[in-house]
Amino acid sequence: MQFTYLNGRYLHKNDCKISTEDRGYNFSDGVYEVISFKNKILLNYERHLVRLKKSLSSLNFESPFYNFFSLKIILMNLIDINLIGDGFIYLQITRGNAPRNHLIPKKIKPNIFLSIYPKKNLKTLIAKGVNVITSNDLRWKRCDIKSISLLPNVLGKQMAYNEGTYELWQTYDKDIISEGTTSNAFIVKDQNIFTHPQNQFILGGITRDIVIKIAREKKINIIEKKFSLGEVYDSDEAFLTSTTVGVLPVVKINNKYILNGKIGKITKKIRIFYEDFINNQLKKHE
Amino acid sequence: MQFTYLNGRYLHKNDCKISTEDRGYNFSDGVYEVISFKNKILLNYERHLVRLKKSLSSLNFESPFYNFFSLKIILMNLIDINLIGDGFIYLQITRGNAPRNHLIPKKIKPNIFLSIYPKKNLKTLIAKGVNVITSNDLRWKRCDIKSISLLPNVLGKQMAYNEGTYELWQTYDKDIISEGTTSNAFIVKDQNIFTHPQNQFILGGITRDIVIKIAREKKINIIEKKFSLGEVYDSDEAFLTSTTVGVLPVVKINNKYILNGKIGKITKKIRIFYEDFINNQLKKHE
Repeated sequence: MQFTYLNGRYLHKNDCKISTEDRGYNFSDGVYEVISFKNKILLNYERHLVRLKKSLSSLNFESPFYNFFSLKIILMNLIDINLIGDGFIYLQITRGNAPRNHLIPKKIKPNIFLSIYPKKNLKTLIAKGVNVITSNDLRWKRCDIKSISLLPNVLGKQMAYNEGTYELWQTYDKDIISEGTTSNAFIVKDQNIFTHPQNQFILGGITRDIVIKIAREKKINIIEKKFSLGEVYDSDEAFLTSTTVGVLPVVKINNKYILNGKIGKITKKIRIFYEDFINNQLKKHE
Repeated sequence: MQFTYLNGRYLHKNDCKISTEDRGYNFSDGVYEVISFKNKILLNYERHLVRLKKSLSSLNFESPFYNFFSLKIILMNLIDINLIGDGFIYLQITRGNAPRNHLIPKKIKPNIFLSIYPKKNLKTLIAKGVNVITSNDLRWKRCDIKSISLLPNVLGKQMAYNEGTYELWQTYDKDIISEGTTSNAFIVKDQNIFTHPQNQFILGGITRDIVIKIAREKKINIIEKKFSLGEVYDSDEAFLTSTTVGVLPVVKINNKYILNGKIGKITKKIRIFYEDFINNQLKKHE
């Protein structure tokens, strides 16, 4: 976890510095991905690449690579030189350097930064489930773009932590749950799973998409439909998803327990199916 | 404009680099000010300082200075070593460096960055007025914090430029004008000036506050009240304000001319009063 990558160079993280004219630093004019890897194998890589390209084109970035195949080589090199098998790669692409001005210069070369973080120990969280709170969704109206304009997410996640909980589920239109600050929100009611539809109100995570795909394959009914806080209180089970945690049970929201604080059967199934999905990816590389 | 300041050091701008673990770079977890100076005198400095402190406390930043008096010394030094009399200082304070995690570390030292930009030539804009367009306000719900989470402002300003206009007036609740992407919006109707009230929907600029103060002193009726796009079309005059432009006439919005594309009398008065206000500050320093 000591080595990073910046614009063609592999650097010790203490030497990895960006211009103070970087538009990411001045304007949050940048995008990012967090990609998980296991046994040195990148997980769900194609999906991350598709989303990254979508983010870049949403913001009309110049192409950061002559050929995106070089990105995979960089990622693999970074894993290798860090001597680490399991963890997460953080990839940030900002628009580039320019004297500070809101207007985007005509010719500008993106800055590409990568770093590696170790795998988190999730055993307790998975075994016990997590608590969440709710608060107003303060974010901008293009949450579908995975930008580094993350100040509202930071403030929300910190609020959750200050309340002794793992996550904050954000609400709009009074009581509609959009998603968490770093994860997607799901509830289960009468054997049906519900999650917010993919639109500008949510980022729409890759784990979310995979959970939808898996559930459909396994004939579990999953519906992309808005749900309210009241429906969460009234639900049989709840869980959240993200690249860093996979599928995590939610057992309490605000001061209300869901299923008396136990982890639901469908949540457990989905977690196991998701782990199988990942293990199948690993097997393909054997 | 070649020298910048970063965390205690005055550096050539090409050598001014920040850690890629800076939370401004990763999360837009930072605040900023743009301060104008003339004849090496900082304009409206106390007001900028008050707002800066408010921004820092809104985000619960550690204090970046043992004593804020040192900030003024740094600003003056930077003006001196750049051998420049008139221009703008850009000041950015980010929360500090930490391994990427949304949660805010308990002990973290803010990064302080300063750079200088030259005065813009505004003669044509002032003489002819500017055109603006309108579009949905995409920003987050805490626009009152002067944060570097500026991606929506960048996209909006660029949209205005692409349409051959100077600014984009942002709308919410269908057709209420909040403010521009880098300026505040004003209209004049029946000798009354209107501007959006100070709340979480607008940043509320320092030039805006001064215009309100001056108008009241000069017995021009000025009302902090929401107005719609329809009311702009129906207005007698319009103008915008910011630190970098002062008071700038608006002569066209979308495809509609205001006052047949001429600059209104009250707008002219306000601009002159604002210039007097600035000149009085300069005189006090003589």
